[in-house]
Amino acid sequence: MSALIDSDLLFPADERSRAIARELYAGVKDLPIISPHGHTDPRWFAENKPFPDPAQLLIVPDHYVFRMLFSQGVRLEDLGVPTADGLAVETDGRMIWRRFAEHFYLFRGTPTRLWFDYVLSGVFGIDEPLTAANADAHYDNIAARLATDAFRPRALFERFNIEAIATTEGALDDLRWHRMVRDSGWSGKVVTAYRPDAVVDPEFDGFQENLDRLGDMSGCDTGNWNGYLDAHRARRAYFKEFGATSSDHGHPTAETANLSDSAAAKLFDRVRSGKADSGEAALFRAQMLTEMAKMSLDDRLVLQIHPGSWRNHSPAILGKFGRDKGFDIPTRTDYVAALKPLLDRVGLESDLSVIVFTLDESSYARELAPLAGVYPCLKLGPAWWFHDSPEGMRRFREMTTETAGFYNTVGFNDDTRAFPSIPARHDIARRVDCAFLARLVAEHRLGEDEAREVAQELAHTLAKKAYRL
Amino acid sequence: MSALIDSDLLFPADERSRAIARELYAGVKDLPIISPHGHTDPRWFAENKPFPDPAQLLIVPDHYVFRMLFSQGVRLEDLGVPTADGLAVETDGRMIWRRFAEHFYLFRGTPTRLWFDYVLSGVFGIDEPLTAANADAHYDNIAARLATDAFRPRALFERFNIEAIATTEGALDDLRWHRMVRDSGWSGKVVTAYRPDAVVDPEFDGFQENLDRLGDMSGCDTGNWNGYLDAHRARRAYFKEFGATSSDHGHPTAETANLSDSAAAKLFDRVRSGKADSGEAALFRAQMLTEMAKMSLDDRLVLQIHPGSWRNHSPAILGKFGRDKGFDIPTRTDYVAALKPLLDRVGLESDLSVIVFTLDESSYARELAPLAGVYPCLKLGPAWWFHDSPEGMRRFREMTTETAGFYNTVGFNDDTRAFPSIPARHDIARRVDCAFLARLVAEHRLGEDEAREVAQELAHTLAKKAYRL
Amino acid sequence: MSALIDSDLLFPADERSRAIARELYAGVKDLPIISPHGHTDPRWFAENKPFPDPAQLLIVPDHYVFRMLFSQGVRLEDLGVPTADGLAVETDGRMIWRRFAEHFYLFRGTPTRLWFDYVLSGVFGIDEPLTAANADAHYDNIAARLATDAFRPRALFERFNIEAIATTEGALDDLRWHRMVRDSGWSGKVVTAYRPDAVVDPEFDGFQENLDRLGDMSGCDTGNWNGYLDAHRARRAYFKEFGATSSDHGHPTAETANLSDSAAAKLFDRVRSGKADSGEAALFRAQMLTEMAKMSLDDRLVLQIHPGSWRNHSPAILGKFGRDKGFDIPTRTDYVAALKPLLDRVGLESDLSVIVFTLDESSYARELAPLAGVYPCLKLGPAWWFHDSPEGMRRFREMTTETAGFYNTVGFNDDTRAFPSIPARHDIARRVDCAFLARLVAEHRLGEDEAREVAQELAHTLAKKAYRL
Repeated sequence: MSALIDSDLLFPADERSRAIARELYAGVKDLPIISPHGHTDPRWFAENKPFPDPAQLLIVPDHYVFRMLFSQGVRLEDLGVPTADGLAVETDGRMIWRRFAEHFYLFRGTPTRLWFDYVLSGVFGIDEPLTAANADAHYDNIAARLATDAFRPRALFERFNIEAIATTEGALDDLRWHRMVRDSGWSGKVVTAYRPDAVVDPEFDGFQENLDRLGDMSGCDTGNWNGYLDAHRARRAYFKEFGATSSDHGHPTAETANLSDSAAAKLFDRVRSGKADSGEAALFRAQMLTEMAKMSLDDRLVLQIHPGSWRNHSPAILGKFGRDKGFDIPTRTDYVAALKPLLDRVGLESDLSVIVFTLDESSYARELAPLAGVYPCLKLGPAWWFHDSPEGMRRFREMTTETAGFYNTVGFNDDTRAFPSIPARHDIARRVDCAFLARLVAEHRLGEDEAREVAQELAHTLAKKAYRL
Repeated sequence: MSALIDSDLLFPADERSRAIARELYAGVKDLPIISPHGHTDPRWFAENKPFPDPAQLLIVPDHYVFRMLFSQGVRLEDLGVPTADGLAVETDGRMIWRRFAEHFYLFRGTPTRLWFDYVLSGVFGIDEPLTAANADAHYDNIAARLATDAFRPRALFERFNIEAIATTEGALDDLRWHRMVRDSGWSGKVVTAYRPDAVVDPEFDGFQENLDRLGDMSGCDTGNWNGYLDAHRARRAYFKEFGATSSDHGHPTAETANLSDSAAAKLFDRVRSGKADSGEAALFRAQMLTEMAKMSLDDRLVLQIHPGSWRNHSPAILGKFGRDKGFDIPTRTDYVAALKPLLDRVGLESDLSVIVFTLDESSYARELAPLAGVYPCLKLGPAWWFHDSPEGMRRFREMTTETAGFYNTVGFNDDTRAFPSIPARHDIARRVDCAFLARLVAEHRLGEDEAREVAQELAHTLAKKAYRL
Repeated sequence: MSALIDSDLLFPADERSRAIARELYAGVKDLPIISPHGHTDPRWFAENKPFPDPAQLLIVPDHYVFRMLFSQGVRLEDLGVPTADGLAVETDGRMIWRRFAEHFYLFRGTPTRLWFDYVLSGVFGIDEPLTAANADAHYDNIAARLATDAFRPRALFERFNIEAIATTEGALDDLRWHRMVRDSGWSGKVVTAYRPDAVVDPEFDGFQENLDRLGDMSGCDTGNWNGYLDAHRARRAYFKEFGATSSDHGHPTAETANLSDSAAAKLFDRVRSGKADSGEAALFRAQMLTEMAKMSLDDRLVLQIHPGSWRNHSPAILGKFGRDKGFDIPTRTDYVAALKPLLDRVGLESDLSVIVFTLDESSYARELAPLAGVYPCLKLGPAWWFHDSPEGMRRFREMTTETAGFYNTVGFNDDTRAFPSIPARHDIARRVDCAFLARLVAEHRLGEDEAREVAQELAHTLAKKAYRL
């Protein structure tokens, strides 16, 4: 491919398996990208303005990048990460870029390194590895390209061969950018997804006001349980108008509940009054997952559960820089007891689609694969976040396939805010899956013709089908 | 071997290791089978009647098979799985077989797929992979063979080269089929194992009546603690008459207890009166593991602990179809604290043999290997249930060998109800172990002559010795 | 290298990766040894007397060795392990050696086997594998060499190419042997490390008297909180005079606390009075980790946390043979919540160095790599104890590198009491790291020139830097 990305990247070292991996990969490398879960900004596609400077595009917003540099003593301010109270931070993109280049060796062995090289080479056509010495030249090179029309969001979207991409918006979002995309007549398929954490989690900042606003936006009375549920139904319907096929839920645990209507209504009153304690807040979140699943039975939105991250672990960083600054740390997460109330209620519905993710790999073979391997509604989301990496994706396949098979998984999610890295992420996932399949073929556990079929399904079909895109 | 099973199945892809694996495997592939733990039906060997149709033999009773199909929307009724209240289900074996064939692709990458191909090819001599198109032909082919004498249970037992097989019977079983086998003069070694869950677990259906019956069968007074223990002693002795060398215990956790005699007697009274709460029930189960271990010191039955499965996770399925319908899900399982009371009492006895299994692979390297690597009574059971698979068995060796060695493990258990799959399961285990050993040899961590010896021990000797067969 | 240790030991089997591993290893195999954490006896280097007989050197003190033999029914007495009350045990080194030789096959597949072969071959020049038949000859051979000057501690230290070694001493140790080493004028760098468990853990044997003695030794009043902290400061300063660059803490869990000064002082009073319950004892230990971290900010000692071992699991063995007899068993260990109080207090200090170890591999990718990948003060200690093995070290790299990178790890610790095995342990770690790096290179995830640089850092530089040696 290039000096930075070898055409055999991530294929097994032995000749037998490598030859099979190459063959399988040839069949999938050019398939269009389905990106059913991610965090790109719909405004990019709406306005189609040029991206800002290289540092603002590639360094400042990428928590994988700045957390590693911070762990080795680089100040977040010096990387241009904005502070919550607007104190001055580095604004000179070139300075930020130089600091990154000086510390680029830290990323050896990490997926960030692979993604970055991919972007450099595949998106910007740069074939010389980044060093402190060429940092300025690379910066200028990228900046020049970003100024051209070929590097505007829609042009890149088309060049990346994206068949469909989902962004994620909060329940209170007016979806103006999605409306603007739709009204523009552009053919790119950019859909939203319903993320109601701010109106589902009683511990969310401004929860009471959020519910007021939810009432205003939906025309439903969010002062009582039934009106509140109706408001969700209304918002989900609104999101569906902008292509949404899924909802997404980032709870601290996978807890679900299955309360009676009257108990749920009573709990809502506590929560609505602001008097709920943390146990009641957790129970409310748990109940709302089940409520969302019940709504999915009607409106067919796919339910995604993303549990197990201890958000904002450092209060000092949260106070100074705000959320999403690299201090979300995975914790042990249980599923077998936690999901039972939801599963007892709707788990046998084969029309329902619940996609479960984890940051706790010890649950793959022990809990998640056995659950997804029997409950018709359950599917396994791909290796997520810290595990969206070659070793992480390999472990995911090794620990889930034998019990859940391939067909209870849903292909790849890039889950990224970093638009230029989308092709890199999908390509790496395809390579890792082909490498895994190549081993199965080399060990005579799967026929090569079957592996070819599976490779295509993992790269394209399963995501499309699971997310109804 | 055949078009379905390559002679190099499961051997490492690189030439160096593969050549060693072939060599090691050649030394073990024809060794007789020791099957020290499983769930075949002794009635088969007693009556020696032909097996029923292909679907009744290979699909309907196999939870690995129907759980996967169910997870993808196939109704259990349509697979012939009987309902608890006798509602009509599919009875046409051919229809069941066709449904299975249509969905056979779901098993790609799973051990079920390998087992099935093995059975097709190795047992029935069919070399064409199952498809929807040839489903009927395969069905007829298998059905025709099942009708011949060469496919009756005893003939297959001999053809499979089984040196000894253990079935599992409840404490209240009269062992009539074992008696019939023994009285028949047939030379096949079919022994029983003592599974007292129904008279040890106060939460078992009909526990009080079970204890009454235990009293009747044993001639002991199960109205008091000492009589109850005597009844176990009597039943264990009875089971030993039919070859039993082990007891087996399927508790929800690995909890053990070491109560004083008077506290145990008092707890028994609570339990016997039906007034025990769930904590007392758990404590009683825990105490009974220690009691069984103490009895083992006298009668030398090997104690097997199979903990950590959340049985019948879906109440709807349990209500409609009963137990063992694919809805048993592993949970996190602790051993270090849980086994301590038993180990404090009898753990240093080198005459005692306690074999521990797990469904929680995170305990292999952390807890089980360190425990088995020092306590003389403890041995590690092989990779179990969902982990009885190529990747699962590989992880077992990789995570236990360095601390427990090979000699604190006990060879392979097929643990199966599916009689025709027994050769497949043992062969796969032998291949995976040879592949693991081949890697050690290729990396110069073990001499090839030593590896040859270990391969034979893993395939045959260790099971024979650990289970005293 | 020798008949016992192949020059390709532990390198990947496929030619492509093996060639790369060889090349990488060539660049690191002769680097001097940094041994920043271990348990060798400073008296050896002080007195420089010949080591005792082969069994007393290689068998009797090695818990890896005797625990395995004990697990297979060999009595500890017969291996010469001394009893707490001085009952007679085997004292004939030759008899102990023979018993070991007879059971040597038990170590197949374990690191002990590799270490032992390394010592036999690399230290004593013996190239014939140990068997029952040659046990006596090997014994005589080793005994003869141990009697020569070339096998005295300092000569071996030099021959092993040790650049620096740290021993570990309790807070109450007078460091007389370190003083003797220093006063001798010998050039070998042997430093101590501060291990204050006996004066930090209220449940430690003789805690009250230990505090009295701490007061005496330091000249501080250990009757109150501030005096007690001053006493630690004084002892740490004393240890630093003898080269200490680190403290080491072996708590049962990773719990830390961040109490107010007054709450801490009050807790100290409870603890000092001997009235603390086990919850208060745990809280005190937790608080002391944070106190030690705060002291590190001043005196720059590196803080090592070694949690998660259930010490002396068998009370019978503890009673008869005392501590450290192979009955320390790892338990599940949490870090994300446990370390938070310490991290809230000092976690963002990039001058502080806290090195965390684990015996619970499930925490590598889930908790430890994400924590170390963002907190400036945190680094990951290498695979520890039962995981200091080829598979264990491989899993460490596979599960930590993608999130923490290489540069948030600290190279290798041999952690051993077995002086002759030090070269073996470091060499094995270097080989495993080169094998891991070779896979990255073979899969085009890292350039070979970069891998060469990383290999050297893992083998030498990172330990030197992290431990400030």
